[in-house]
Amino acid sequence: DPNLKIFSLNSNPALAQEIAEFIGVELGKCSVTRFSDGEVQINIEESIRGCDVYIVQSTSGPVNEHLMELLIMIDALKRASAKTINVVIPYYGYARQDRKARAREPITAKLVANLLETAGTTRLITLDLHAPQIQGFFDVPIDHLMGVPILGQYFQEKGLNKDEIVIVSPDHGGVTRARKLADRLKAPIAIIDKRRPRPNVSEVMNIVGNVDGKIAILIDDIIDTAGTITLAANAISESGAKEVYACCTHPVLSGPAMERIESSNIKELVVTNSIALSPEKKTDKVVELSVAPLIGEAIIRVHEDQSVSTLFD
Amino acid sequence: DPNLKIFSLNSNPALAQEIAEFIGVELGKCSVTRFSDGEVQINIEESIRGCDVYIVQSTSGPVNEHLMELLIMIDALKRASAKTINVVIPYYGYARQDRKARAREPITAKLVANLLETAGTTRLITLDLHAPQIQGFFDVPIDHLMGVPILGQYFQEKGLNKDEIVIVSPDHGGVTRARKLADRLKAPIAIIDKRRPRPNVSEVMNIVGNVDGKIAILIDDIIDTAGTITLAANAISESGAKEVYACCTHPVLSGPAMERIESSNIKELVVTNSIALSPEKKTDKVVELSVAPLIGEAIIRVHEDQSVSTLFD
Ligand SMILES: Nc1ncnc2c1ncn2[C@@H]1O[C@H](COP(=O)(O)O)[C@@H](O)[C@H]1O
Ligand SMILES: Nc1ncnc2c1ncn2[C@@H]1O[C@H](COP(=O)(O)O)[C@@H](O)[C@H]1O
Repeated sequence: DPNLKIFSLNSNPALAQEIAEFIGVELGKCSVTRFSDGEVQINIEESIRGCDVYIVQSTSGPVNEHLMELLIMIDALKRASAKTINVVIPYYGYARQDRKARAREPITAKLVANLLETAGTTRLITLDLHAPQIQGFFDVPIDHLMGVPILGQYFQEKGLNKDEIVIVSPDHGGVTRARKLADRLKAPIAIIDKRRPRPNVSEVMNIVGNVDGKIAILIDDIIDTAGTITLAANAISESGAKEVYACCTHPVLSGPAMERIESSNIKELVVTNSIALSPEKKTDKVVELSVAPLIGEAIIRVHEDQSVSTLFD
Repeated sequence: DPNLKIFSLNSNPALAQEIAEFIGVELGKCSVTRFSDGEVQINIEESIRGCDVYIVQSTSGPVNEHLMELLIMIDALKRASAKTINVVIPYYGYARQDRKARAREPITAKLVANLLETAGTTRLITLDLHAPQIQGFFDVPIDHLMGVPILGQYFQEKGLNKDEIVIVSPDHGGVTRARKLADRLKAPIAIIDKRRPRPNVSEVMNIVGNVDGKIAILIDDIIDTAGTITLAANAISESGAKEVYACCTHPVLSGPAMERIESSNIKELVVTNSIALSPEKKTDKVVELSVAPLIGEAIIRVHEDQSVSTLFD
């Protein structure tokens, strides 16, 4: 369909290319650069009048650069008479600022939703939002894709002894996600139950469920500084787990993350390419799975007005 | 008035401090930092419920960082029940992208206006917009301040021989600005009339007006890479000017700007602190004038519902 156009900005060009190949189209021609003073300069080099345009851009770090590129691109497409502007954000940044946890905090995840709509977004396709409630921050339709099937398939095909697997959530907030992976692998779950007995006393890690003699697979949505996940891996080993794997959809991996993971007892860190890994993060421990077929299939279905939710049956 | 609060973000802390001192209040307590992954983290450390809040932040480079800090701060203040949110942007970035000069260009200056209003801005105070039409991009009230009186006063007090001064606009677009400065200094004007005789032939610089034997003062709103201004300075000297000064409100000074200025025949570059100069830009040639009294006075008048336009009589 010549009316389907896919553009990539600067956050995930390789993923965008893979998505375009999956669908069988060429990426739209545009250049997204900077003026001498650092302002974003966008040139869209082909007509998109009357087209259904899909923009692939994660708001991963540098988050403010990537977000502004996206907003300016949406503005340019809107003014160039695109029929629909479908924003594909594999990793939705600022998602952890989704509520006022303390007085006078911003709710940046909602602000970003408003900014995207103000610029001219007509639909959002995204993956594993940190909180599913963020869907309600938007008034335009959202297709919310899930990374668990991709992670699950990897472990299924790995040939681990099924009877020894246990899926572990590193905190209370992640139990639903762990349950979903456990269902796919027909495995039991365990939960790391952190608590601070008194202020200024270090946290106690208690494991709810059995990991002794097991192959533990830790799962989270985001791994950022990797503090939580490596402490959890330690606690599991100390409770008798014989192997520890870790997986997540979004490998933010900032600050001390790579050092912590490399020196941890985690055997493999399995992630998706929702966030592009810089070369120094592509170590032997890190396994990268592609979300291109998932996103590509979602785009095809959206474009043909077919159900996307059946993708997860 | 305890209901008047001024907050500074990270672009112009020294200017914000000066403004607060001019008004006679303390800057509001807040910290604007980054999480490990580069996302903006804001903590407002005092109640602002029911207050008239003024935020001082230029959207100078790194423009996307400064703009997102500003939007997130506005969001936080709105949710913390500020009565009014008055955004003070001494330098309004992205102002040069104020129209579609080519097909499929964004109009980022308008996008930014929409983003500021969406976040919760109730008023804008700004200085020398690149095009006055940008005022119309906003639906909230704007106070548009002018830098010319500050630049003019500097040259008046410098003791130059009044009869020898000529004010020069480096291009057609700046003639109105040059006229305003000339009125203050009771001096004639000249205009650099660039044209390209044929494609791929270099530009010819023709000077309309008399600069021979004169003290020329070049004026522009923004000096960015300094290409225009240093070429103009050359052309003026070649036409017999005995001294060349240059001045502007907004010293963007990106890329080769400082090298060009230092090696040019410009005797002094006079600028304002609408954009903070990094230490390596504070050379002997550069004279920095403060807009703090101007902005401080504007804030006082806005807060007391008095006319701001009489500031320029
Ligand atoms: N980029 C970030 N990095 C680390 N912490 C964050 C970030 N953004 C928000 N937060 C904090 O993370 C907490 C929410 O995380 P969670 O409980 O996992 O939803 C809140 O207290 C936020 O202030
Ligand atoms: N940050 C920037 N640096 C250099 N040129 C720009 C910038 N933003 C926009 N422009 C271009 O500058 C031109 C407008 O400048 P002007 O004619 O001075 O209003 C347009 O062609 C824009 O594409």
